[in-house]
Amino acid sequence: MRRVCFLLKVRQDRLEEYRRRHETVWPDMLAALREAGWHNYSLFLRDDGLLVGYLETDDFGAAQEAMERTEVNARWQTEMAPFFEGLDGRPDEGMTPLAEVFHLA
Amino acid sequence: MRRVCFLLKVRQDRLEEYRRRHETVWPDMLAALREAGWHNYSLFLRDDGLLVGYLETDDFGAAQEAMERTEVNARWQTEMAPFFEGLDGRPDEGMTPLAEVFHLA
Repeated sequence: MRRVCFLLKVRQDRLEEYRRRHETVWPDMLAALREAGWHNYSLFLRDDGLLVGYLETDDFGAAQEAMERTEVNARWQTEMAPFFEGLDGRPDEGMTPLAEVFHLA
Repeated sequence: MRRVCFLLKVRQDRLEEYRRRHETVWPDMLAALREAGWHNYSLFLRDDGLLVGYLETDDFGAAQEAMERTEVNARWQTEMAPFFEGLDGRPDEGMTPLAEVFHLA
């Protein structure tokens, strides 16, 4: 399993709604993520809107492609796009992995 | 186990050295972290120096206190302090956890 970390920026005026929406992610979106190999997936939010994503997966490119093939992901990403700053496309297209510089099992 | 994420900022002119130092963290520092309950601990670095820490632990406050009681941590944090921006004290004192807004096991 590879560890993946990415950063996005949530608009300051949408923080509360973003939080609320993530308390009740659609069950079919959760199932799609699981089936696509997204494991131990967390999102952390700083007060200024900086969002940290962390997950574990065998191959992040493959896990992203598996989600892209689902209809539920297209619907979810379209609904989430207006929450983010500085994105041209869908949020899942802006999930650029950071370099891991240290790991302790 | 709780999932913990924190952010720090590495000075742009020290990025390479920070990376290099983390390829060879002292064995007694690694042992101390393990014994203090820091599990699955990763550091991710963005090109501009933003550093993301992620770990899993039963109680982050207790895991931090356990490290504070070790001599090796004091030595390590003293050596690491000059690598960071915007810190008054030691880097481990600036590890403020972000709010987790989503988790999928």
